[in-house]
Formats: sequence, C-alpha cells, structure tokens
Amino acid sequence: MKILISNDDGIGSEGIYALAQELKKIGEVIVVAPLHEQSAVGHAITMKLPLRVTKYMKNNEFFGYAVDGTPADCVKMGVRNILMENPDIVVSGINHGSNTATNVIYSGTVSAAREAAIMDIPAIAISVTSHDANEFEYAARVAAHFCKVIAEKGLKKGTLLNINVPNKPESEIKGIVLTKQGHSKWDDVYEKRVDPYGKDYYWLTGTLLPIDKEPVYDQHAIENDYVSITPIHFDLTDNETYDEMAAWDISGQAIG
Amino acid sequence: MKILISNDDGIGSEGIYALAQELKKIGEVIVVAPLHEQSAVGHAITMKLPLRVTKYMKNNEFFGYAVDGTPADCVKMGVRNILMENPDIVVSGINHGSNTATNVIYSGTVSAAREAAIMDIPAIAISVTSHDANEFEYAARVAAHFCKVIAEKGLKKGTLLNINVPNKPESEIKGIVLTKQGHSKWDDVYEKRVDPYGKDYYWLTGTLLPIDKEPVYDQHAIENDYVSITPIHFDLTDNETYDEMAAWDISGQAIG
Repeated sequence: MKILISNDDGIGSEGIYALAQELKKIGEVIVVAPLHEQSAVGHAITMKLPLRVTKYMKNNEFFGYAVDGTPADCVKMGVRNILMENPDIVVSGINHGSNTATNVIYSGTVSAAREAAIMDIPAIAISVTSHDANEFEYAARVAAHFCKVIAEKGLKKGTLLNINVPNKPESEIKGIVLTKQGHSKWDDVYEKRVDPYGKDYYWLTGTLLPIDKEPVYDQHAIENDYVSITPIHFDLTDNETYDEMAAWDISGQAIG
Repeated sequence: MKILISNDDGIGSEGIYALAQELKKIGEVIVVAPLHEQSAVGHAITMKLPLRVTKYMKNNEFFGYAVDGTPADCVKMGVRNILMENPDIVVSGINHGSNTATNVIYSGTVSAAREAAIMDIPAIAISVTSHDANEFEYAARVAAHFCKVIAEKGLKKGTLLNINVPNKPESEIKGIVLTKQGHSKWDDVYEKRVDPYGKDYYWLTGTLLPIDKEPVYDQHAIENDYVSITPIHFDLTDNETYDEMAAWDISGQAIG
C-alpha cells in the first residue's frame, strides 16, 4: 500500500512523525507536509506565489518533503510532482487539536484529505482532541486500522473519513462510533490590544459553544470519550433548500 | 435592510465597488473587505497573527473598512467589532471569476458568505465568470434582487446562495436557473522554473475538466449563458456513506 501523508501542523510536528512511524508498518510511506504551521488555513491553495520543495531530515534521516505552502498544496504537489501517480490512500494528521463540527470547515488537516478526495484518492484526516496532545500512539494505530479497512471495503470517490481521537489513555477510550458533523461553533471575540507604537490591533479568541446533545454528532462523541468517525465529502449543495427553492420560480423573475 | 459586504479580491477591486453602489439603493451598506487580494484562500481564518482595521477611501470618500486578513476574518470582524450586531444579510463579491463546482471549496468569496451562514446570517456569494470581467452592473442588480427575495422568503439558517453570472451583456443572458454544485475540477500541473540563483520553484497551473453535462449543475449553466443559483451549506457529512458504513460495524473492531 502506497500512503501519502500530510498535515497542517507542519512537517516538524510530533503528530505527523508518530503517524509516519506507524503507517510504515503497513505500507510504503511518503511524507509531503507544510514547512511551516498551517492551522486554520482551510482549503487555501497557492496560486499567486511559487512553491519550493525541500528535503526534511529528522534524527539524521530523510523524513519527507517540506513544501512552503498549505496542506492542500502539499497533497497536490505530492501526487503530481513527487509521486507522479496516485497513492492508494492519503492520511492527514495526526492533528494537534480536534477537528469536529464547524472546525471541519477551518481545518487545514481536513482540507489536505479533502484535496485527495477531490483527486479521487481515498483519504483519512485524523486528529487528537487537544492542542497539548502528547500521546499519538493509539491514534496512529487507529489510522493504520482504517487504512486497512478502506483497502478492504473501499470508499466512495469524493469521500474521506474524518477521525477524532480523545486525548486520553487507550484504556479510558470507550469505543469507536460512526458520527455526523456536529453544529458546535465558536462564539468569537476579538481581543483589542495596543502595539508598542500606540496602534490598535485585534486578536481572535473565543469559546466553542456546546450545541449538539445527541451521540450521533462528532463533538458529542469525543466529549464522551469515544473515537468519532465521520464520512465527509465536498458537495456543499443544500438539497433541502434546493427542493424548497424550486417553488420560488426564480427563472421567471425579472431583475429590476 | 443592513447589508455587510465583503469579497476576496480585496477592498480596492471593481467588483465590490459595483456591488456596494447597487446595494446602497436598497439598504444601509457596510463594507469590510480584505486589504490585499485573497483569492483561493478558502475558509482560512487568522488565529496566529493579529489583525488590523483601517479606513479605506475611494474617490475621496469613505468606502469601507480594510482588514489585513482573509474574507472569513472580515465577516467575523465586521459583525463582532464593527457592526457589533448581526446585519440582515452578508453579500460577498462581486468576484472576478466563477465560483462553480469544486472551485466553491477553494473560494474566499464563498467562504466569506459561508462564515455568515455559520453565524446564522443569510448570505449571498456572487461572481462574474471571468477574471477579466469588466461588466458588473447586471450582476450587482442580480445580487440586489436576491437580497430582496431572501428578505421576503427567508433562507434556512446555515444556508447561503452561491450565484454565478456569465460575463456577457445582459441581452445575451438566457435566464436564471436553480442549480447544484457541479463536479468539474482542475487537472493540476506544476510548472517547474528556475530562479535567478539556480534554484527550482513550481507554479500551479491547470485546466478545469468539463465533467458535468446536465443543466442542473452550476458549471453547465454558466457555460450555456444562464445565471446559476446554488444553495449551499457547511454540513459536509456524506449521509450516503454514513448509511453504508453502518454495516461496517466499526464499534466492534479491535485496533491492532
């Protein structure tokens, strides 16, 4: 199995290292990841600037290719210019921090996997639910397990699995549940500060609102010590509203 | 009607100016847009850097607030720190270039409107289908029209309308159609070049593959001289795969 690995925390992060070490047990691993941290870049791609690729060493050994761009750039570059062919699967992570609910929209980690899905390559995004996570070994084994499950069962083109693992010892994790993207979102606050030259600046902070109470949602699952697995795609059509709007008769309306 | 306007081409672009001029006829307009061009930044938000807000003048008059961040930042900042309350609607555009099919994923313009949808504010993203567009007057009227339609009929929380207008004279536009997000995607190519110091760099190029042949899809509609209107949301759950995976019995699987 040929496995392309990327992330958004950067090629030097602990999570991607743990992931690569584990996945090497089940296949050929190629790491193509951002040179610099790219959290919350969403599905940004670099079109107005050139990209450079450098070889990245870890513990005096070649670890992978660093790209001075976004997670989605890394997957495009990895497939088109480094592998020169589709890998069997793309795995993005292990992210330091959860990617549930509306965070899925902001996440660079999920976007790397989604870029693979756009390229018709099966993909997994995997995150541990703390920015201070220091235990990636179980999450890495979860990723390896689902690589094998996907190899056996297949995954619909255009779909990826978004996996979130509680930041707990394996013994405290209650199980794995199939989930849907939740509705929790940030109550944003901009902290106003003054720079050393007397000018105002603003820094985004906020708290995640606990909206979903049902176990079917990803955020609820991780808060209750379950690993959540959500199949996601990139078709944003709101079919319910589409059906409702059919009654609006937009085609017949004159534009004033 | 209080209308917050943003875009991804930057506050100095022609599209946002045409939009603001038209929407001033139907409501109170507040422009909060990126200081610099932010095309293809997707749903990036700025968390690791501070943001600054400056007043932007056009034709010797105050035009709006410029934020040195992304389109999604501008909407958050506009609502939380400038308006200090929800506007009645957020309109993002007029984008120079189409935002159909998989481009919806990469688009900063759509992401600004999607950020509004996350905040439970009705929103419209509007684009003219050419990067060299020089005619925004009709598209601006289309945007104003659908602001009024949404004010009258409402829009489900979490949903926005993604509107694409062919870059043609109004007389050549055949009508307005309700569409779904299409499947056309980019066949990516990285052009390899050498810098003045002998080092390689890569520049993303590519062609949009014409995949959808059915009039129901946005890309097909604009290629056939129709304005396309696609309702989109930010729930990425792939419900079809969710139902299939129920048979995988993931909860019972041991992680090796």
